[in-house]
Amino acid sequence: MTNPVLVEVWRGPLVESTHRGAVAVADADGAVALAIGDVAKPVFPRSAIKALQALPLLESGAADRYGFGEAELALACASHSGEPAHVAGVAGVLAKAGLDPSALRCGAHYPISQAAAFALARGGGPSALHNNCSGKHAGFLCVACATGIALEDYWRPQHAVQREVRVVLEDFTGVVLTEERCAIDGCSVPTWAVPLQNLARGLAKFATGHGVSRERGQAAARLLRACAQQPWYVAGTGRCCTEVMQIFGARAYVKTGAEGVYAGALPELGLGIAIKCDDGAGRAAQAIMAAVIARFLPLADGEREALARFVRPVLTNWNGIEVGALRVTAAI
Amino acid sequence: MTNPVLVEVWRGPLVESTHRGAVAVADADGAVALAIGDVAKPVFPRSAIKALQALPLLESGAADRYGFGEAELALACASHSGEPAHVAGVAGVLAKAGLDPSALRCGAHYPISQAAAFALARGGGPSALHNNCSGKHAGFLCVACATGIALEDYWRPQHAVQREVRVVLEDFTGVVLTEERCAIDGCSVPTWAVPLQNLARGLAKFATGHGVSRERGQAAARLLRACAQQPWYVAGTGRCCTEVMQIFGARAYVKTGAEGVYAGALPELGLGIAIKCDDGAGRAAQAIMAAVIARFLPLADGEREALARFVRPVLTNWNGIEVGALRVTAAI
Repeated sequence: MTNPVLVEVWRGPLVESTHRGAVAVADADGAVALAIGDVAKPVFPRSAIKALQALPLLESGAADRYGFGEAELALACASHSGEPAHVAGVAGVLAKAGLDPSALRCGAHYPISQAAAFALARGGGPSALHNNCSGKHAGFLCVACATGIALEDYWRPQHAVQREVRVVLEDFTGVVLTEERCAIDGCSVPTWAVPLQNLARGLAKFATGHGVSRERGQAAARLLRACAQQPWYVAGTGRCCTEVMQIFGARAYVKTGAEGVYAGALPELGLGIAIKCDDGAGRAAQAIMAAVIARFLPLADGEREALARFVRPVLTNWNGIEVGALRVTAAI
Repeated sequence: MTNPVLVEVWRGPLVESTHRGAVAVADADGAVALAIGDVAKPVFPRSAIKALQALPLLESGAADRYGFGEAELALACASHSGEPAHVAGVAGVLAKAGLDPSALRCGAHYPISQAAAFALARGGGPSALHNNCSGKHAGFLCVACATGIALEDYWRPQHAVQREVRVVLEDFTGVVLTEERCAIDGCSVPTWAVPLQNLARGLAKFATGHGVSRERGQAAARLLRACAQQPWYVAGTGRCCTEVMQIFGARAYVKTGAEGVYAGALPELGLGIAIKCDDGAGRAAQAIMAAVIARFLPLADGEREALARFVRPVLTNWNGIEVGALRVTAAI
């Protein structure tokens, strides 16, 4: 099955590039509100399910034991930009568990934020704290600390923390996560391939608590609230995830993942959203997510206007001249 | 027509992303050696034809008048990384024509080279000299200077320099470049959409001199020689264009363009190559170019080995763990 073109990249009078992909929108019972393209094919959700990976942090009691607030919970769900307050926040999470950054095994990379990267380049370069996944990793470490499990190898599939994450993901997606679905993510933890339709249903369960235990539903609600209250901590300055949640608050939860994945939920409608661009293009996944929100969520004029720059981003060149635009196709 | 998948991005046991595209390989008479996908659809060649855009620099007599050597000619054909010697080289080109960098209208951006960008961030930030297109723009300015044309608006389609570039492109591609094919490139000069098959034939004419005037053929040969002799100036440290031309010298000319375009030539075989990834992915276009070279050019063992990291790039994560690879499909 060939997925349809979902985004066109226009330059002047012509389409310069195109992005194909698939979109699933479903409720917690699996009822499909929208299915475009192959929604049964397994895709790696990558960072788009960090909020699900963060559930053991609450369910283990670690978050309460260490007294984490909403910013700290949002960081556990984040692909942060490595701006100073992100980095300080993750260091604070580790400190509350009696750890220092040397425990992190996500690897180091320069911050997504150019300003933060340039500031660091003047010093000694990035540490694991600056890795966009450091909040998630700090959360894994806290789970191990709070429950008395060895920290070593906390990122490996066979470690108790990752086994617990796997159980959570199976519960939400309804997919048995066997070896042949497993690959290694950018930050070294396992990533499990699941069909988009299962991912969308999983996000709907996450956003509503339907179909999971009461305790799990409450933990999910607390993470959703944290992300809605502290969206800057989920991504960073100028980033799509942050700005969309700033526009909509608790009405829209969205989270990007590598290789053109986007996941989200519209809690008031009981819907989960899962998007994958075939070619891994983040620019297209972002426009599709914005268009899906605009399609389903009743929007006030101000909200529609604020969302427009994500639905139809204008392309400008190095002189600031408008040279084209991304356009979501009629398929959505 | 749906173009075939040309590159798969594997992660662990599964294909995570795919890239579709089209490839044309042709000789100077237009005889097709390879045609994959829709090679008749117009595509913007972007920076992949900078060497053709540089021809007026030689044909106008400007290059001789100002005494440009091979590094300076290579810079006119370059999407350089903004490393110190690139920047100094472009400043030198301008100085020989009695100009300073304030004449450039390509816009400023941080260098492609991370090291160069970080070094600049410590100072006052980038200038137009650091723009990857500054060598091409310096060449345009030199043409205007040497022929006594006003410099102002040298980047606009109606300026005499751009009109001359357009005539050259029409000569090589055999396409009449009318308004509806024209858009604005990242550096503000016009980019004209032409079918891949015409682009491939144009590159073959460029590499052989067949089908163009003797003078034009000689100018093309001189630019090709400059790029083969000074490939570092065409891109920069670690870049694919530079490394491929370092491997093959005059046997392979390759030049990347934005949005998944790659152009090239295999002069000894009389062939031109034109590649476009539908989705604009540079990572895929690069792998396809390497695979096309491997398909057509007789390779010594050392050459095959040196090319392998471009044909089948391994993907590693932030911890240096191998997590996947790009694989060019059997379509090529």
